[in-house]
Amino acid sequence: MAERLVVIGGDAAGMSAASQARRRRTADDLSIVAFEKGRFTSYSACGIPYWVGGLVDERDELIARRPEVFRADYAIDVRTRHEVVDIDLDRREVVAVALDEGRREVREPFDQLVYAIGALPVQPHWAKEGVSGVFGVQTLDDGDALHAWLLRDPKPRHAVVVGGGYIGVEMAEAMVNRGLTATLVERGPQPMSTVDPDMGALVTDKLRTLGIDVRTGLAVTGLDHRDGVVTAVRTDDGTIPADIVVLGLGIRPNTALARDAGLPLGPTGGIRVDLRMRVIGAPGVWAVGDCVESVHRVTGQPVHIPLGTHANKQGRVAGINIGGGYATFPGVIGTAVTRVCDLEVARTGLLSVEADAAGYAFVTATVESTNRAGYFPGADFMTIKLLAERGTGRLLGAQIVGRSEAAKRIDPLAVALWNGMTVEDMVGLDLGYAPPYAPVWDPVLIAARKAVEALGVL
Amino acid sequence: MAERLVVIGGDAAGMSAASQARRRRTADDLSIVAFEKGRFTSYSACGIPYWVGGLVDERDELIARRPEVFRADYAIDVRTRHEVVDIDLDRREVVAVALDEGRREVREPFDQLVYAIGALPVQPHWAKEGVSGVFGVQTLDDGDALHAWLLRDPKPRHAVVVGGGYIGVEMAEAMVNRGLTATLVERGPQPMSTVDPDMGALVTDKLRTLGIDVRTGLAVTGLDHRDGVVTAVRTDDGTIPADIVVLGLGIRPNTALARDAGLPLGPTGGIRVDLRMRVIGAPGVWAVGDCVESVHRVTGQPVHIPLGTHANKQGRVAGINIGGGYATFPGVIGTAVTRVCDLEVARTGLLSVEADAAGYAFVTATVESTNRAGYFPGADFMTIKLLAERGTGRLLGAQIVGRSEAAKRIDPLAVALWNGMTVEDMVGLDLGYAPPYAPVWDPVLIAARKAVEALGVL
Repeated sequence: MAERLVVIGGDAAGMSAASQARRRRTADDLSIVAFEKGRFTSYSACGIPYWVGGLVDERDELIARRPEVFRADYAIDVRTRHEVVDIDLDRREVVAVALDEGRREVREPFDQLVYAIGALPVQPHWAKEGVSGVFGVQTLDDGDALHAWLLRDPKPRHAVVVGGGYIGVEMAEAMVNRGLTATLVERGPQPMSTVDPDMGALVTDKLRTLGIDVRTGLAVTGLDHRDGVVTAVRTDDGTIPADIVVLGLGIRPNTALARDAGLPLGPTGGIRVDLRMRVIGAPGVWAVGDCVESVHRVTGQPVHIPLGTHANKQGRVAGINIGGGYATFPGVIGTAVTRVCDLEVARTGLLSVEADAAGYAFVTATVESTNRAGYFPGADFMTIKLLAERGTGRLLGAQIVGRSEAAKRIDPLAVALWNGMTVEDMVGLDLGYAPPYAPVWDPVLIAARKAVEALGVL
Repeated sequence: MAERLVVIGGDAAGMSAASQARRRRTADDLSIVAFEKGRFTSYSACGIPYWVGGLVDERDELIARRPEVFRADYAIDVRTRHEVVDIDLDRREVVAVALDEGRREVREPFDQLVYAIGALPVQPHWAKEGVSGVFGVQTLDDGDALHAWLLRDPKPRHAVVVGGGYIGVEMAEAMVNRGLTATLVERGPQPMSTVDPDMGALVTDKLRTLGIDVRTGLAVTGLDHRDGVVTAVRTDDGTIPADIVVLGLGIRPNTALARDAGLPLGPTGGIRVDLRMRVIGAPGVWAVGDCVESVHRVTGQPVHIPLGTHANKQGRVAGINIGGGYATFPGVIGTAVTRVCDLEVARTGLLSVEADAAGYAFVTATVESTNRAGYFPGADFMTIKLLAERGTGRLLGAQIVGRSEAAKRIDPLAVALWNGMTVEDMVGLDLGYAPPYAPVWDPVLIAARKAVEALGVL
């Protein structure tokens, strides 16, 4: 009899695991059942703001692989609109309910289990009170609901985005692109706390030139509504009209099921896994994607960094291992890039506040340079900030805010940081140079030089 | 009395050395005299094709710093139109002639000497016979002469570029952009031998769609002329009409002076230097830029890779050392990028032929992917090829041919290679992901995955 693999969660992480396992083991050897609460599989949640904003025309462009493809080409029994409500580790079975069949109960036995139900938007109390017009942007079903709301008659005109992280900023821009007014409410001193304040200020300026009303140091206390439909956001400093409210307060690992089943959660709230993505202390159980915590390779501490790229890698690792191969997930270094209108924002490693918290003594160096030779058409400025450890000179973090061809310059910095390079060594790096692509000193190298000077080691 | 530094060659390498030394030592402590044969200092020779082709409007945009700036702001006594004709190491002086003053002889004593007179275009016998209309593109004076030739009356209509390396390809495109017909004559089987043949074929196709007549396996044997002005290029398979001939046969270190002075040359023909850019066996003499050979960090062998970025780094290193600091040049890994119309071409590490020659057993993996998420507007294809060593899995080389946002993806690959990463380790790299900048698996990571599969290690 075939070994039985059950996957909970049909997005990137879970389906990567399933398809990698399938590539290595036939259906005779391994049966695979995947439960997905929503209607879609393997889609790009990261693409939702661009579809909502109108840059991507069709929702279905965000879908990499549909359930029927998994069924036909991968012999994976995908069951959408099935919500898993219990994991029974003793009996080795999961209990699911079929949402479109009157919550009919399905019990599915497993030998191997992949837990991959991602994360949930952080919901303040006021978002749970049943007022309509309040949306997270975590799943494609969420995006679908939000998108439909924008097409209501009369059309919503005023959007309030609560929380100024990546998603909040991207959604505020999407609202403006849809022709709504947008207010971005951030409790902290400024949005984009995913970069240092001096770098974030560049982004805040850009948001304001887009016409986004950025309100900082402001807490949302509740919602006003008419007939259950939101009309305004109440704050500790007045109300803001709102026909639609978008939650951008971050997301937390979706672990209720895991906790109930007794799977171990770490200090970040994510499920604890080993290098091969096995849940610690639970033989035959794997967890991947936005629901797990990862090791930060710089600090060695657990972190929860929900990103599609990690989810895909982790799914692949689990799938290879389930398939009988060997693969490990080496951890993360906090690389992230985003676009705010024509600004590109990128980071890797530690922010200043994170480096402080970890106990590092460090210097910072900030430079302004261009993406191309200064004389080349299309040359644009970018700002790069580096953090380097005192004493060792090791790169601890990097941030970039620029216009074209800026964000992905975080990649050579990420690889340098990954390998523990010092900024002094980085000055010698042989990066690509030609006038259309870089000044003769690439901005990355100029930043490294400046950091060397800040260390005072020459 | 101040120590005396004499710099021979006023372009990037020499003037970087001079200005770095000046930053650390006052004019009272160190006098600096720089001789430059041409009229310009510190310019971007790499930008000449773009100026000739009309993308860059003004020649002077290519000049980073003029002689008068070095004189006024750096207290560096720059003497343009002065050709150094002899270096007397015993008497510690150089002999120069003032080209605009009837070759008046100048003798200049030195304590420290920086040799930085770059490289010369390879000139076949027929290019030395005094026929007008034949140009190298090595110095800004060369570019100036070529540019002036294009404005003759009647205007040249037919260009022949001899040699299909970076410069040849860039100049063929520049000629087309100026409205000339262009024939690219390459002795080998195809142009762009700076990448593997399968990757180079993509570039050849593009050159042909640009209207460039690419003629391969063809050797130039001589020139036809009328009144000393070129009219055609003779080959071993007929003649090609030509009003202008551009040399793109590569360049060789300009070492005649060095050889006469007894400075050591290596197997590549470049001057041999140590890590601090000191000429080996010649105390107080430094050499930097296109005239020196470097160590290739993968093979450990000496190579001659003339590039502005290396010249600048080497100049900086020499200048810091002369200034009393400590810096080293760590060698190169052969990274290079170029643009051919809307194609971006990049490489780092070893080509297949180079890896073979060095004795490596290796696998190759070639993938096609996109620069952005496939659904994101502006997504464009690129091809990435990796070489990985059998057994160790270490990355040996990478090549990219693509459209937008392709070339600089060589940088994370270059940093990975620099650090001796295996392709298996590279799959886990935390590179920047967001739909406007990458698919959820960056092309670099997809290529690494494919290389892992080619190694068969999972």
